[in-house]
Amino acid sequence: MLSRRGQQLYEVLRNVRPLVLNSARVVEASLAADGVSVGMRAVLEVLAEAGPATVPAIAERLDLARQGIQRHVNDLAALGFVDSRANPAHRRSVLIDLTPAGRDRFDRIRGYELASLDRMAAECTDGEIDAAIRVLRALNRDVRRRVVGA
Amino acid sequence: MLSRRGQQLYEVLRNVRPLVLNSARVVEASLAADGVSVGMRAVLEVLAEAGPATVPAIAERLDLARQGIQRHVNDLAALGFVDSRANPAHRRSVLIDLTPAGRDRFDRIRGYELASLDRMAAECTDGEIDAAIRVLRALNRDVRRRVVGA
Repeated sequence: MLSRRGQQLYEVLRNVRPLVLNSARVVEASLAADGVSVGMRAVLEVLAEAGPATVPAIAERLDLARQGIQRHVNDLAALGFVDSRANPAHRRSVLIDLTPAGRDRFDRIRGYELASLDRMAAECTDGEIDAAIRVLRALNRDVRRRVVGA
Repeated sequence: MLSRRGQQLYEVLRNVRPLVLNSARVVEASLAADGVSVGMRAVLEVLAEAGPATVPAIAERLDLARQGIQRHVNDLAALGFVDSRANPAHRRSVLIDLTPAGRDRFDRIRGYELASLDRMAAECTDGEIDAAIRVLRALNRDVRRRVVGA
């Protein structure tokens, strides 16, 4: 007999997939006018938060393939939002970094997103949202272990 | 000045994307031996829970395009997990339903998944997980409104 736990967590997972799909659609629609995709936005976010990074390091952080990240980096470079420089730690891999225009663009994107989110889930308390973050982080950790272990 | 709310919900969204990616990878790996994909599994789930449905109704429930759902239905039919029958409500659209083999297959998939989930997020309380479900449902509702309104 399964405990309630498994079924509760199953319900969490059922609710995350449509949320990812639909929030990507909303973000994509708001970015489309400037030629920025959801994937490019994710790369901007990593660089804004973690600082300069190599393509493999960005890929690891986003759990995505290097080839896809390289494509996003190329597209962002074409828009003048990132550039690359020599990596003191490894002669063969370059560091990708935001340009001032890239940082400005990301700040505007995030400001718009935060303002939209501010009006959502109005009936939930701060405590409930904090609990949701704790649960999602714990699930992420445990699910990622299964991927690595597989 | 933004309230804490927007930033909390931003943190929720940041945690759902890798969870969807990695849980799909875990599910895909566990299903691969039988030729069932994550998308096919999602269709089985809708039919198991909501009963017989048309392809457009399944697509709407999963927030996915009809063409993709039709492909999954065809693949499931080839494995003997679904079949189609006349739809009393609309002469031109058929109802898709689980076969006994399809229901049995889905019950086994879900049993395995629930048993795996049962051991995850062990440090979170039932109350926290319930809060997470409430928050995700509220966010899904509000984000979906933005998609429809866009």
